[in-house]
Amino acid sequence: MANPGTIHGVLLSDTFDLKSFYNLDLAGRADDVRLFNPDEVTDPAAIRFAVCWLPGAEAFAPYPNLEMAMSVGAGVDDLLGHPGLDGGVAICRVRDPYQADLMAGFAVHEVLHVERDFHTYQGHQSAARWDPLPLRPPHHRKVAVLGHGSMGAAVTQALAALGFTVSVACRRPPREPVKGVAYFTGEDAIAQAVTGVDTVVNVLPLTPQTHGILNRNMFGRLAPGAWLVQIGRGEHLHAEDFVAALDSGQLSGASLDVFAQEPLPPGHAFWQDPRLRITPHIASDTTPHVVSEQALQSARELLAGKPLSLAVDRAQGY
Amino acid sequence: MANPGTIHGVLLSDTFDLKSFYNLDLAGRADDVRLFNPDEVTDPAAIRFAVCWLPGAEAFAPYPNLEMAMSVGAGVDDLLGHPGLDGGVAICRVRDPYQADLMAGFAVHEVLHVERDFHTYQGHQSAARWDPLPLRPPHHRKVAVLGHGSMGAAVTQALAALGFTVSVACRRPPREPVKGVAYFTGEDAIAQAVTGVDTVVNVLPLTPQTHGILNRNMFGRLAPGAWLVQIGRGEHLHAEDFVAALDSGQLSGASLDVFAQEPLPPGHAFWQDPRLRITPHIASDTTPHVVSEQALQSARELLAGKPLSLAVDRAQGY
Repeated sequence: MANPGTIHGVLLSDTFDLKSFYNLDLAGRADDVRLFNPDEVTDPAAIRFAVCWLPGAEAFAPYPNLEMAMSVGAGVDDLLGHPGLDGGVAICRVRDPYQADLMAGFAVHEVLHVERDFHTYQGHQSAARWDPLPLRPPHHRKVAVLGHGSMGAAVTQALAALGFTVSVACRRPPREPVKGVAYFTGEDAIAQAVTGVDTVVNVLPLTPQTHGILNRNMFGRLAPGAWLVQIGRGEHLHAEDFVAALDSGQLSGASLDVFAQEPLPPGHAFWQDPRLRITPHIASDTTPHVVSEQALQSARELLAGKPLSLAVDRAQGY
Repeated sequence: MANPGTIHGVLLSDTFDLKSFYNLDLAGRADDVRLFNPDEVTDPAAIRFAVCWLPGAEAFAPYPNLEMAMSVGAGVDDLLGHPGLDGGVAICRVRDPYQADLMAGFAVHEVLHVERDFHTYQGHQSAARWDPLPLRPPHHRKVAVLGHGSMGAAVTQALAALGFTVSVACRRPPREPVKGVAYFTGEDAIAQAVTGVDTVVNVLPLTPQTHGILNRNMFGRLAPGAWLVQIGRGEHLHAEDFVAALDSGQLSGASLDVFAQEPLPPGHAFWQDPRLRITPHIASDTTPHVVSEQALQSARELLAGKPLSLAVDRAQGY
């Protein structure tokens, strides 16, 4: 039994050490909220909430008195669809206002890294070689942004502010269009936005319509030697067409942060391909600080019997 | 003699191959304007203008009929003060609206590169290692921008747009302050702006007051392990204090783009220091495309006897 005035929770993930990654070791920070890894739980009946990322099929089974399950991410698909989670358990999500800033920062870094030859200069440094390369005016470089949710809008704004010529494929015309940006809507939006561009930044959501959309047909529309920044979902990329576009030179390279299989297996050819910049799905995420604060907040609301301010509507799905 | 209807110019630089770097080989692009390297000039008396970058002391001597000297940079100090340049020769400069965009792009890249651990991920890629590191919310990271001319203002705006907490040292309060940015003016402006920050971006002009301003006193005010982005002038940096700050860990490293001696000599210890990111003065510059277009424009104005729209006022100095 938990002491009165305290509440116990469990960390459930098949793929992550949530406690260390999200700074969820609350010992010394909160007397009223205790969070355990499953192997540290001595009284499963005292567990009233779970903090989760991709919990396994049997993850919830040991805890008969669960009242709330919280996702450390913005998405709750894995909780809504979980067969082991009772319909009466409230589902919460983290709401992190900084996710879009992080996404924009990642995209801007990758576009600039390639456009401004930083990789080349790094090689020059180790050779003590002073060799300034010609600069290109940013407005001569065309960047297409695919997708225009909160992430895509932030990416668009940041690239336009740095002087790039930006075209955007979006579902609806934006309510607050950025001056100088060309927005395309409708069936041909993506084809129009990418035609002739030097760089494509993909932040589309994954739907049946966008599955495999980064394919031969799209690559063929880009300027020769274009660069792809892939920060949407791994399933957007048609792997065979992608490798063919690299080999033909239609793509000079790509920044890949998301993959159909994650972690990217150690033996995968992408790791050692000098045309690729590989990162482990870190373009954006809820930040540990925010996750930790909001997990604490939700647990305390539960303990106090207050409404859960981060709860999602199960019917709406968000 | 040049044919009537054509005008001849010469490229004068002690340090640069201007023709290849700035795309100033006009053959095939302009029938009316010819530009020569000094060793290609057969009739020095036919040379009516010069396109220059750090011309040598005797550079102008062979050309008795020079009417205009143009700098490929925004600064014309080296032409105004040149002992070999007659007071009757008009001096022109390039006016490149994209210089501030380039500067902002460089600064943003360096801040993000360090803040988002891209160097670490690059090492992980070659080891096929999938190891996402915790993300920090950008607003928890404090960046100081020193200097608030057109360059500093662009850098400030770009960093603030990406969610960083920005403080600025400026001579006058800005006319259009960016929301959320803290501006400091007055004698202690720099000390106040840098106190406790994680990153300093230096874009100050070089004056007797700012010479050596990146010194022990300043480094001591930063958060321990801070990063310096040095894109002002090489003479801002107190080299001895800088190395001491690196060795003590007060600075974790720096991005250095400008140096007291340029090119940075091949034997200089900075090249091989793993704590430093070295680039050859490429944070910003007039872009070759703009230089080429404006050199052509000025030559044609001279040929047509029109006023030179890019001429500077010798008395004002700009």
